[in-house]
This record gives sequence, C-alpha cells and structure tokens, in this order.
Amino acid sequence: MNTFGHTFRITVFGESHGKAIGVTVDGVPAGISLSEDDFATDMARRRGGAGRGVTPRAETDRANTISGVYRGFTTGAPVTILLENADTRSEDYYALKSTPRPSHADLTASTKYGGYNDPRGGGMFSGRMTAAIVAAGVIAKKTIPEVRLSAGLVSVGGSADKTKFAEIVSRAAAAGDSVGGIVEIRAEGVTAGWGEPFFDSVESMASHIAFSIPGVKGVEFGAGFGAANSTGSNNNDAITDASGTTATNHDGGINGGIANGNAIVMRVAFKPTPSISRPQQTVNLETGLTETIAIGGRHDACIALRGAVVAEAALAIALADLALRDRSRRTALVADDIHDITGR
Amino acid sequence: MNTFGHTFRITVFGESHGKAIGVTVDGVPAGISLSEDDFATDMARRRGGAGRGVTPRAETDRANTISGVYRGFTTGAPVTILLENADTRSEDYYALKSTPRPSHADLTASTKYGGYNDPRGGGMFSGRMTAAIVAAGVIAKKTIPEVRLSAGLVSVGGSADKTKFAEIVSRAAAAGDSVGGIVEIRAEGVTAGWGEPFFDSVESMASHIAFSIPGVKGVEFGAGFGAANSTGSNNNDAITDASGTTATNHDGGINGGIANGNAIVMRVAFKPTPSISRPQQTVNLETGLTETIAIGGRHDACIALRGAVVAEAALAIALADLALRDRSRRTALVADDIHDITGR
Amino acid sequence: MNTFGHTFRITVFGESHGKAIGVTVDGVPAGISLSEDDFATDMARRRGGAGRGVTPRAETDRANTISGVYRGFTTGAPVTILLENADTRSEDYYALKSTPRPSHADLTASTKYGGYNDPRGGGMFSGRMTAAIVAAGVIAKKTIPEVRLSAGLVSVGGSADKTKFAEIVSRAAAAGDSVGGIVEIRAEGVTAGWGEPFFDSVESMASHIAFSIPGVKGVEFGAGFGAANSTGSNNNDAITDASGTTATNHDGGINGGIANGNAIVMRVAFKPTPSISRPQQTVNLETGLTETIAIGGRHDACIALRGAVVAEAALAIALADLALRDRSRRTALVADDIHDITGR
Amino acid sequence: MNTFGHTFRITVFGESHGKAIGVTVDGVPAGISLSEDDFATDMARRRGGAGRGVTPRAETDRANTISGVYRGFTTGAPVTILLENADTRSEDYYALKSTPRPSHADLTASTKYGGYNDPRGGGMFSGRMTAAIVAAGVIAKKTIPEVRLSAGLVSVGGSADKTKFAEIVSRAAAAGDSVGGIVEIRAEGVTAGWGEPFFDSVESMASHIAFSIPGVKGVEFGAGFGAANSTGSNNNDAITDASGTTATNHDGGINGGIANGNAIVMRVAFKPTPSISRPQQTVNLETGLTETIAIGGRHDACIALRGAVVAEAALAIALADLALRDRSRRTALVADDIHDITGR
Repeated sequence: MNTFGHTFRITVFGESHGKAIGVTVDGVPAGISLSEDDFATDMARRRGGAGRGVTPRAETDRANTISGVYRGFTTGAPVTILLENADTRSEDYYALKSTPRPSHADLTASTKYGGYNDPRGGGMFSGRMTAAIVAAGVIAKKTIPEVRLSAGLVSVGGSADKTKFAEIVSRAAAAGDSVGGIVEIRAEGVTAGWGEPFFDSVESMASHIAFSIPGVKGVEFGAGFGAANSTGSNNNDAITDASGTTATNHDGGINGGIANGNAIVMRVAFKPTPSISRPQQTVNLETGLTETIAIGGRHDACIALRGAVVAEAALAIALADLALRDRSRRTALVADDIHDITGR
Repeated sequence: MNTFGHTFRITVFGESHGKAIGVTVDGVPAGISLSEDDFATDMARRRGGAGRGVTPRAETDRANTISGVYRGFTTGAPVTILLENADTRSEDYYALKSTPRPSHADLTASTKYGGYNDPRGGGMFSGRMTAAIVAAGVIAKKTIPEVRLSAGLVSVGGSADKTKFAEIVSRAAAAGDSVGGIVEIRAEGVTAGWGEPFFDSVESMASHIAFSIPGVKGVEFGAGFGAANSTGSNNNDAITDASGTTATNHDGGINGGIANGNAIVMRVAFKPTPSISRPQQTVNLETGLTETIAIGGRHDACIALRGAVVAEAALAIALADLALRDRSRRTALVADDIHDITGR
Repeated sequence: MNTFGHTFRITVFGESHGKAIGVTVDGVPAGISLSEDDFATDMARRRGGAGRGVTPRAETDRANTISGVYRGFTTGAPVTILLENADTRSEDYYALKSTPRPSHADLTASTKYGGYNDPRGGGMFSGRMTAAIVAAGVIAKKTIPEVRLSAGLVSVGGSADKTKFAEIVSRAAAAGDSVGGIVEIRAEGVTAGWGEPFFDSVESMASHIAFSIPGVKGVEFGAGFGAANSTGSNNNDAITDASGTTATNHDGGINGGIANGNAIVMRVAFKPTPSISRPQQTVNLETGLTETIAIGGRHDACIALRGAVVAEAALAIALADLALRDRSRRTALVADDIHDITGR
Repeated sequence: MNTFGHTFRITVFGESHGKAIGVTVDGVPAGISLSEDDFATDMARRRGGAGRGVTPRAETDRANTISGVYRGFTTGAPVTILLENADTRSEDYYALKSTPRPSHADLTASTKYGGYNDPRGGGMFSGRMTAAIVAAGVIAKKTIPEVRLSAGLVSVGGSADKTKFAEIVSRAAAAGDSVGGIVEIRAEGVTAGWGEPFFDSVESMASHIAFSIPGVKGVEFGAGFGAANSTGSNNNDAITDASGTTATNHDGGINGGIANGNAIVMRVAFKPTPSISRPQQTVNLETGLTETIAIGGRHDACIALRGAVVAEAALAIALADLALRDRSRRTALVADDIHDITGR
C-alpha cells in the first residue's frame, strides 16, 4: 500500500493535480531539530527547473509541517508534511483520457480501479509523488546524522561521460524524445550490523522503496550485475583488518543482507521518460481502434536527472528504518555480554 | 525480520546445521489440494546434486507438513513445512570460526548479534534457507494456478552462450574458484491490475524477496538497466489493442507498479559463490592479524544454478500476495460500477 | 504506532493545538461515493456542544478531503482528511506544564519523549484526536454499507437509568467533578465469517482500536464480564436453524473470533474525565514538591457522551478491515468447491 | 492472521489433533540463555491436570526448540518451538461433525473456510493452541527480566471467595456443566514510557492478544468497568512524588496508553467452557433440523483455571514487544538532550 517501513514508517498521499500531496512520517525519535528550511536544499535539488531536461512546471514545494514538531524539535508524534499543488494544468492531459499513454500507468490504473482512478497528470502514479519521498528523506537523514549520503548520475542515454550528459538530454528534448539514466547513491558512515535477516536485508529494504519510484526498472548493489560476470577470486572482498575493512567493495557494503561498515553503494536504473512528443501508437478505448498520439504538456526529457535526490532519499529512509530496528536489539547486548566469536 | 508478505505471508526459521529449517505460510486460501508430493519437483530442481557446480551435500528435503492441511486440502490455517537437516558436517566450518570468510555474512552476523549467532554453515545466513523459499513457492504457485512461471540461466560467468555454461562452471570448480550468473524468471498469465501503489508495486515486492536470496546483488525488470541506455521512442511499449497488448515488453509486464497483463520478466544477478578453495586474505579475530585461508567443505561453484528455482519461487510468493490483495479490492467493483475511463 | 488496520488501514496525525489533525485512510476500494457532507452527521454527533457535560470548545470540524476522491468517488488512492484546529486556547494549559495532571498522559508523554512532546492540550494524547477516528469511521461505514451500526450510553456514573443521565452529568459538572460511563455499540448485518484467526479475531481487532480511544479502560463482547459469572448451560447460545441463528446472543455475534451472523455487541467503559476543577494532588516537577492543582479550561464532564460515536467509528473501522480481508479469501472458494462439513 | 507483535513477533501454527502445534518467535534479542527446561514451569501451570475442573488429556508438552538457540543462548534468529500432539482422541469429536457445538467455533470456522477447516478437536480454534502462547510467553519473560508477572483467579462462577473456587468447579463438573471466571494479571517493574501512541497503547496491544485466547469475552485495566461508575475526584490517581508514584492505581499503570511505572493490572473474563455434557440444542447441518446433543470427550469445567498462565503469557508478549519498540526510540535521547518539561 502507500506505507513503507517498519519502525521509521512513511505514508504518502495525494495526486499530481489534487489539492496537495503529502507524507506522514511515523516513528521519528523525539528531540530532532526540524524546521521548514531543512527541506529547502533537497526540494531544490529535486525541482531542478533550469536545465533543458527538466519540466518547467513551477513547483514551489514549500514543506508545510502540519504535525509532530513543537518549538523546533520533533515531538515523537507523526510528522506530516503537506506540499501544495500549484501551477497544475490539467487541460494538458484531458486529450489523453481515452488514449492511454504507452509505458505509463494510465491503462493499468484504470483497469485496477475500474476507471475510478484520478487520471489528471497520472494521479497518484505521477512523478510528482517523489516530492513526498524527498521530504521524508530529509527527516530520515536527520534521524541518522552519522550517515553521509550522496547521489549522482553515472550514465545518461548509454553514455558514462559526464561532460556529455547535458548535451545528450538537450538533443533528446529537441527531438521530442527522452533518455534514460543510471543514478549511483553512496551512504558512508553506516554502522556495521544494520539490516535484518532474512527478508529485511539492506538490499531488500532499499530496493523495495527504490522500485516504488516511478520509472525505476533496475537496482543493484556493489558490483551488482557485474558480479554475475565475475569469479569468486576476483569478486570477493578481502578483509584487511579486525574492524572489517576490505580491500575492495564489490559487495557494496553489505554481507548476508547486513551492513559491514563499508560504504553502501546502490545503483538505480531509470527508464527514459515515457511522455514524449514524438508520435506513438496507442489504442482509443472508446473506439477500440489504434491511434497515433503525441504527448504535449511539460515533461522531463530525462527523469534520472531529478531521480538522484529521490533515490538518495529512498536509501536514507530504508537506512533510518533499519537503524532504529537495530537499536532495539543492540541495547540488549551490554558490553560484558559480547560473545567470543570463536565460541570458546 | 523473517516474515514476508501482507496477505499471503511467509515466515522462515532454522539454521543450516540445526535440527531443521522450515517455513510457515499464512493466508493460504482454504480448499487448495496439497500433498507432500507437490513439493518434490521444485525441491529436486533446487537440489541439483548431479553437476559439477553443485555441492554434493545430500539434502533429501522431504517436505514434512505439520499443519494447515487436512484430508489433502488446505484448511485456511497456516501451513508449516519442516525440512530436516541431514548430512550436516559442521566440522568443515569449525576452522573458520575465528577467520571470517570474505564476502560471507560471518563477520556481519557476529557483529550484529554480539557473537551469539550460530556460525555453523553460516547459520541462518546459509543458502540452505532457500529450500524454505522453494517450499513456500510451491504453495504460492498453487494459490495462483492461472500463472505459469519459468526460470532459467541467461548468463554464467559473463557468457550468454548456454552451450558453454556447464564448461564454465566445471572449469571454475576445477580451479577452486566460482562464477556468477544471471537468472531470468517469467510469469505468464498474471491478471492485469495486480500490484499495489505506491510502495507495494510488483517490482518492489518481487525485488524485496529476491534480494533476500543469499548472493543476489542485482534485480531488474523488462529492459531493466538496458532501458537506462535507451530513448523513450525506442523503449516505450506501443499499445496495439484495447486489452492492453503491446508490441514490445520493455516494461516487463508492469506499468506504474501494476501488472499490465503481459509476461512479468525479472532478471536476478547472483554473485559468484564466495566460498572458494583458492587462498584468500582475511583477518584472524583472535590475533588481529591478517591471514590467508582456503575454504574447504562442499560448495556450489555457481549458486545461480540452484538460484533459478529459488528466484522463481520468490516471484511466485510476491505474486500470490499481490493477487490476494487485489482480490479484496476487486470484489468491491461490480460490473455496473465500472467507470468510463474517459470520465464522461 | 499511529497506524491501525491491515487491508483497510488508517494513520492519524496532529496535535490538539497544532495546525490541524488528520487521518489517511488507505485501502479504500475505488468507486465509493464520498463527499464532505458525508462527514457532517457523525462529526456533529461527536461535537455535541449543547449539553452540560460537553466542552463548549467550538470545533467546526469540516472534513477537508485532500486526496483519494475524484468527481465524487473514491479513486483507490489513500483518502486524507484534514480537520483544522480552530479556537485553541493554549494559555489554559500553560499553568499545568510543570504540574502534570493526575490520570492524564502529561507525565508519561514527557517521560517517553524526554520532554520534547507537545504539551498543549495534551498534544497527540488529546481527546481531540478522536475526531480523526470519527472521520475514518465514516469512510469505513461506506465501505461496508450492508452493516448497520448504532451506539448509545447504557450507563453513566453507575446508573443505568437513561432518564437520569443528563442530571448526573450536570450535577458532576456543577460540582467541578466528572463521571464515567459505558457505551454499547451494535453492528447488525455483519457477514458470518468475518474475523481472522488467531490473533486478528473480531474481538482482538475491535478492542485494539477501542482501547486507543482516550479514557477507555474496559471492553467486553456479548455477555462479557457477566459471562464469567455464568454457567455453560446458561451462557451457551443454542443454535436454532441451519443459518446459525441462535436463541440468545451471549457470545455477542462472535465464535472463535469469527462473526457468526448475529449482531456484534461491544461495550466500552470510559473512565471519568480526568480534568476536573476540584483540587487534586500532583507534583511540581521543578521543585519536586507535591502541590494542589485545580484544572481550568474547557472539559467534558463525561467523555462517554462523545464516546458513543467514537467507539462506533472504531468498530466500523475494525469491521471494514476484516471485511476486506475476508473477501480476498472468500473469492478463492467457488460454489462447487464448498466442502461438506461432515467430511464425507 | 496468526502473527502478533511488531518487533517481538510471534506466529502460531498447528491444530488440536494434527502432528504438532508450534510457535515461531522473531525479534528475540541475541544472548538470552534459553533451555528446554525454562519452559517446564509455565507448561506445567497450564497443564494443570490434577483438579476436577481440568481435562485429563495428558499433554506432556515438552518444548522442542527447532531453531534460534545455540549453545544455550538465543542467536538473534527466530526461535521455533514445536509441541507434539499426543493422546489425541479424535473419535470423541466425530459425532459432532454435522452438529456444530453451541458457542463453539465449529459453525463459524466451517462457514469461513467453506467446510475445509480441520474439525478435529476444534482444529486451530482449540484451547490447545494456548500452549503455544505459553511457550512464547516464556521467551517474552526472559526478554524483559526486569518485569515480574503474576496471575491468579479473582472470581469463579460469580464468586470472589477463593476458598470456594474448587468446590464451585467440582459441582459444575459433576452436574455436566461448566463455569466462567476472571483472571487478574499484574506486571511489576515495567519501565515508565513503554507503550506506543496512538493505536499501540499498552491496553490496545495487551487486549489484542488477550482477546485471541479462546473463551475470553472481556478485558479491563485498573479500575476498568468500575471506573465507568466512578467520579473523576475518586478515580484520578493523585501523584505523590516526582518519579510519578501515585496514591492509588485506578489507571492500572497506564496513562494515555503509556506505562507510568506503576504495576500494570489487567483483568480478563473467561466465559464458561462451552463444551458441556448437559443436553443442548443445535442444528443438524445434514437434515437441517434442530437436534439435542450432549458433548462427550474431555473438557475443562472452567477454562479460566488454565487461563491464568495463558493470560499472563499474553501480557508478557505484549510488554516484550513494547519494550523493544521503546528501546529503539530511547537510545536516540541521550542525557543532555532531555528537555525541560516546562519548556523554558
């Protein structure tokens, strides 16, 4: 459903062209300083707005804190953030109602909800919802301040040459087309031991939320798919000291689903924006006949551009949840209880 | 934790060298025929046992049904399956207690649990646990009999040439090394509409459980990472009729997280088995000094070989859960309630 | 945490004197007609406002639907309702900050959250939060329209004479005191079979949410505590026809945690409002010395008065959740699958 | 479903006359000493077996630990306990298959599961399942060793005179009848602050699991239903020192759903055993006609007798879960972060 997380738990709501979208973050520890300014940087990163590949829709995205903060600190109550929807131009989408956009959720949403879904701007399936993820990510980051997160594009439209990214996106936009891209997210400072067996491994939790970001079609950790092409002797991370430092980080900071203290490295593949102005074939649900459509409106030519901060927020949320879960277990182990791993 | 799923929900337990491993499957609809023979085929697929790349450990893996079945049919009560651990040779592992195996969970498990974890054969982090996933997968498949699942290796050690797979694995085994591989799983017959927004998309649920399989480092759907290298005009799946049929399936049967009726296509990357007999560097936790180890015992030279049936079971479990969830919603929409998608 | 329910799932947020309180209802089937007017009746029932025993705080409680409704019907997306907080007079409470009110959450909240909790009007522990429950209850009732719910006071201040209730409350209010009361809620039209084993029985789910209502200290079903004083021959409900009709309803419509088709009967005990203007002993947390306080502000002299509609909403929410859960199982049983109960 | 708890989480499985019943306890901290002997005392308390009011069925109930314990300590992996079913006499029940027992789950279970439920001895609706609760309770108690739990009968068949209990039960048994009873459970040493808002209050969690015990029809805390007959000035618990000590404990150790450091006091009402040998009216599902039955087999004349240790286990499980949850929050508040409650 629209809730993710076990102990640090977020619930998103809203639709692209409704009154507002928002997120409720439950399980936030009390005593964390939080102001609306804290959201500004990541909201601005997501908004982009300048470059060629990003929709000119003006989203001010001032985070309106409804609950859970008192005199500048979190209270232990759920924190609800509202983000108003301004500058919606639903008329852009009206023409598409009977002609579902290829590779969009228009048809699946209508099928699932018997036609009752809100079709305006993709409704709750819109990329607009990622603003709620970014807002929740800000709170997650403040919950685990020891972790340093960063994210950036490592590939756009098949090229890994960062000097070409802007040009590739511009060219696609000019051609009424779009391109995909790959984002790499790194989390340094993760405490060894975070991650729960069996199903709530770091990879399971992080991929779960990453795949909820619209347009994500692949997730890998460390060497990822590259590890499948390798040998054990090349891929294994040799351990070089008693704290678990390793010579390489092909495992992306995770063994057996549990953080090993190295940087968590996750890569997320975004498909090309499905909304393109070039003509595409779809079906007219009223006539039952195929039809060619060209999608107007404002769209990113490369959703991976905004995707970096969203995927970073997603990883932050997963880690905040696993951090709080590990703590409840950790405190049960006092110093003199620590067992000799050799079992003697 | 050790539970996955919302409405069709599995809980695994056990350790590699303990008395038994097992799984409790809750939410199984009443009235499904189920006998211990139903488990035989998939258990045999997982066991392998013949080829060079698979450990010779004899796991008979007779599924012992403890509960939830009466006179050959499921009763609506939780189904618990026990799989005894026979032929365990813990002595193989004793030498490794103070020298954690590189790229294994030995060190993270010890860190997380203060040394109290069961180290024998990797304890609950062992690939042995995948037998419980396979058993649960059998029940999942019988819950959604309309879905036809298949899985196979599409790449081993970097080669996509299936005629070379056996040779690549044999050569790695002979060299005391191991290789990775990629498994592709297909699910045909999935009802359009399965999948829940926002966080419980088909991809989110399927990747969550797939990443809990030991050794999995990457998951992708449809064109996956390849989509990131493509353009919208090439990657979009043109809709060719009113039932949602598409000319291509780059989206892997999923739009906006919701199944569109096409085959679900998932690929899972397995890293090379970390247990290799070639010498590797690790640290001796007693002395604090680095040390070179060679791992004896019986190990698969390519865990992806067994991984196919396990990943197929994982996808079946995720789909069974989403199928039951969709049903509760579906029945609320009676025929004459179905809205005109055009909103008129 | 602040979420209840499995398939029909509500999340509440807000504080008594913050900007707003609200509730997100997830899992609402698409296609249910819902307008802001639908909330008016139950909101008015909760508000009370006329009688002596109810606080004169003016809560307009217009339900502001933020999401999940489009053109008058639910869309399948989460429905978020905001209720603004108007007419808050925080100054009433400031005097109490260092002197926690007896039998209130002031001290436990401060202990739990290290003093960071929002103390104004009880923060998230306020009876104000029950407006969110009532709003969610309205949606729950529309989800299970076949069920007819009613609730009423059966006892006030120890008297079961309904003609005396108003007088008892008035007298208590005049004396600066308060009284408790018992609410009985009935749900007719519940489908036999709702309720999940083992832990999610009708009683377990209904009591879980009922005990989250501030001031509730007891919950019973059917004969309840009275059954403990009875004998099997008197308490058993004789079955009088094949549809399961019973001569009596001492079990309150539930056997083995599963609805049997009779009316569900739940009684909820509310303690007297702890806020009273009569002097009480507490401790001054600044001085560490005991102190006598008299609580000003506006308070209900009998929270059970408003409690009826709140407890009714709570039962509706629990039943909506169990109804949707039962449906997912039900649809797996087609007519010719129905087994002969005699097992022949 | 068959799972209870959020961080300390139990899953029960099995049927009265199947191979075994059992419980998986997940979230148990590593490093707790646990042997099969630890279960003996509570298992014996539940078994009873001597007195007139308890069924002579011989349940040896040796707790067979399948997983999660290594060299005498919990490992952090799920602990699964199996309890074999010996001495089952299913033939006792066969005569009842077409004549559902009044006030039992026979008819509701058959309705819910379309006749596929296991009817032998009540299947999963049997009181036999409470042995799994008791086993899980043993682990819960070892997880919160600072808490001292006790439970005892406070009323049998309407009498509060403990010297009469044995006689009342004997007389009912001799008459082929049964009686109800009330159990009071106390938990001393609970840390102030346990309990989660809004829905996971101590009362909500404890009542949820208590109402899953077969035969429970009422739950109250502190003054409970008695509080509804009282006034604020009499019912409020005056605070007598800065640690929160109170002059009375009408709130049963809980304010706003959060433990206040006083003893938690819960009372649980058990209805009379519905299985009685006196003649009762039911319906014959084959003929559709009413019929008179007398229930043979072995049955407790007062299930409240065994209910004490079961309800105590239930409270222990709820508290263990809340304790682990509170810890994850607690550790986020370091000493110098503790806020001045007065907000200065």
